[in-house]
Amino acid sequence: MVNIPKQNLRTPGPTPVPSDIVEAMSNPMIDHRGPEFLEIITAATEQLKQVFMTTNDLFILTASGTGALEAAIVNTLSPGDKVLSASAGSFGDRFTEMVETYGADVQRLNFEWGSPIEPDAIRSALQAEPGIKAVLVTHNETSTGVTHPLQAIAEVVKGEFQKLLLVDAVSSLACVPLPVDGWNCDVVATASQKGFMIPPGLAFITMSKTAWEAAETATMPRYYFDLKAASRFLERGQTPFTPNVALMYGLSLALDKLLEEGMENVFERHARISQLTRDGIKDLGLELLVSDETYASNTVTAIKIPDGVDGSMLRNLAHNEHNLVLAGGQGKLTGHIFRIGHLGHVTREDIEEVLETLRIILPKVGFRAG
Amino acid sequence: MVNIPKQNLRTPGPTPVPSDIVEAMSNPMIDHRGPEFLEIITAATEQLKQVFMTTNDLFILTASGTGALEAAIVNTLSPGDKVLSASAGSFGDRFTEMVETYGADVQRLNFEWGSPIEPDAIRSALQAEPGIKAVLVTHNETSTGVTHPLQAIAEVVKGEFQKLLLVDAVSSLACVPLPVDGWNCDVVATASQKGFMIPPGLAFITMSKTAWEAAETATMPRYYFDLKAASRFLERGQTPFTPNVALMYGLSLALDKLLEEGMENVFERHARISQLTRDGIKDLGLELLVSDETYASNTVTAIKIPDGVDGSMLRNLAHNEHNLVLAGGQGKLTGHIFRIGHLGHVTREDIEEVLETLRIILPKVGFRAG
Repeated sequence: MVNIPKQNLRTPGPTPVPSDIVEAMSNPMIDHRGPEFLEIITAATEQLKQVFMTTNDLFILTASGTGALEAAIVNTLSPGDKVLSASAGSFGDRFTEMVETYGADVQRLNFEWGSPIEPDAIRSALQAEPGIKAVLVTHNETSTGVTHPLQAIAEVVKGEFQKLLLVDAVSSLACVPLPVDGWNCDVVATASQKGFMIPPGLAFITMSKTAWEAAETATMPRYYFDLKAASRFLERGQTPFTPNVALMYGLSLALDKLLEEGMENVFERHARISQLTRDGIKDLGLELLVSDETYASNTVTAIKIPDGVDGSMLRNLAHNEHNLVLAGGQGKLTGHIFRIGHLGHVTREDIEEVLETLRIILPKVGFRAG
Repeated sequence: MVNIPKQNLRTPGPTPVPSDIVEAMSNPMIDHRGPEFLEIITAATEQLKQVFMTTNDLFILTASGTGALEAAIVNTLSPGDKVLSASAGSFGDRFTEMVETYGADVQRLNFEWGSPIEPDAIRSALQAEPGIKAVLVTHNETSTGVTHPLQAIAEVVKGEFQKLLLVDAVSSLACVPLPVDGWNCDVVATASQKGFMIPPGLAFITMSKTAWEAAETATMPRYYFDLKAASRFLERGQTPFTPNVALMYGLSLALDKLLEEGMENVFERHARISQLTRDGIKDLGLELLVSDETYASNTVTAIKIPDGVDGSMLRNLAHNEHNLVLAGGQGKLTGHIFRIGHLGHVTREDIEEVLETLRIILPKVGFRAG
């Protein structure tokens, strides 16, 4: 029998689940082709559209966020399609790898990890290669703590070039503003374990009219992630395959809570708590990874590990002696940064506890404030 | 806030979740790249191998069973590969459609719905077309309540022809014997919401040495369901993408319970309860769909709707007035049968309640015992 003590879990997903949502998930199983499920999925889909600020079609998938990103690709593209993929971190690279795996002709547009994706560079790339069909972009790069300027990017991609825009919003949606219709994003994918305050296992994806038009001719193979099937089944309040019923219960309550708080307030809360995090980190004498704080993420903060400090020891001490779980670096940032997640169900007290713990353990792992 | 009253849920998945497993799933979230998760996934994978009776590699995926079936296909096959797909129901057809979607050259071998797949017919098909690379088969056809003779099929496919054998075991595994190594099955896929007594959202898949050899040259595109990535990450006690942590807690306890009861006892319990179901159904004057009771499934029973009986009204009355949820027919059996799931956490009393409810409502929906 598993018995996990409560932690100050400050990874950028999974994030802590509020106790009333845990309780909601404990409801008994039901028939996923029955009337109760119809009611749940219909209401949740409508509420999700409010959170995504869209009237586009929206689907709930039983998968991690990466599954929804795969759905974004395979439902709109064909092998050989020219695609521009902008990346400035691990998750941008993952999105790129995924579209390459499915046979697109990919032009990689890479930026320094810790820096934002530049709309001007996207403009130049689109000018240089008129054959590009779609642009892939990550809204919030979880691996670096940078929120890319998606609105400005969308103005270029959609406003100037009318290309298909596929957005990884896994660690941004429901935490920072992403008005899907307002910014004219064709496909936006996210997951349950971040801003939505429920465990991992569900993913959400929107499809614009333009995305559906692309789907008509897209030939990348798809079955589990076929959104046409999802659309057909959603009309009768169902999913093509057995959905994660327990998480659907949790999602229902989470959406009630988010919409009751009001999305503007949710965004403001995330902004406030992330500012508290960044200020506290700098007060400790540590340095943020982000090159320009204007682009600092309101969901995750990446901090440079100072010279002489053992990053693994830092995270181990935090975990073992203070019950605080921090995230490490990913890809080429492994060993060079650590990260604090401050998204979803997180309070000022949680962050104060993080800062206090760091204050205690930093000197024990070789840190000397400059 | 969702509030679902406890039901006698007799669909063949989702199935009821025991209360101690619900409690286990309520444990707090953890880092899926941390030491606690490593312990959980390592232990669960080893225990799952015991349930599958295999030393093959085994992976836990965050998806429905259909996702694992897609993984079985895309990890071992290439577009253009000749494949023999045997089907006698909706789920057999789904497996066939899936492999067609990914571009295999499929020979369909269809049997009457309600009848078993015949090993002799598979032998003839393999003799007639030596170029066939793989055979796809459903162990237990959920839509008809038939358990196909997988052992005899495997003796032909593996023993006589050494073809790759991909098995849909979604509604059989952990309920009826399926010794993966004993029967030499290359890829076996199942899901969490059936025999494993946890909600839908996780899927399990095994890969034999031969399946891995096929993976070396398989060119169907795969990313979310790439088992090589799963294997690489499992070596460090992780999954490539964020896993369903809450269900992993439930799975851990479910596996403890199954192995403590002993799989032989679990199989015997399913056999006993399904016999009780079939006997009771026949006592009511109803007729089973299965053409030969030797092949009657120990996890789900399909019952013909007698002439003059309104099947929808039968299920609605059961649901609305007796809190009993039965399953309808699927595909071409819609309106012709109803089904009783008796797999996972189900007791003699649950089935007696089903039979008693049917005794009460059958006369109200036009039934006259012959």
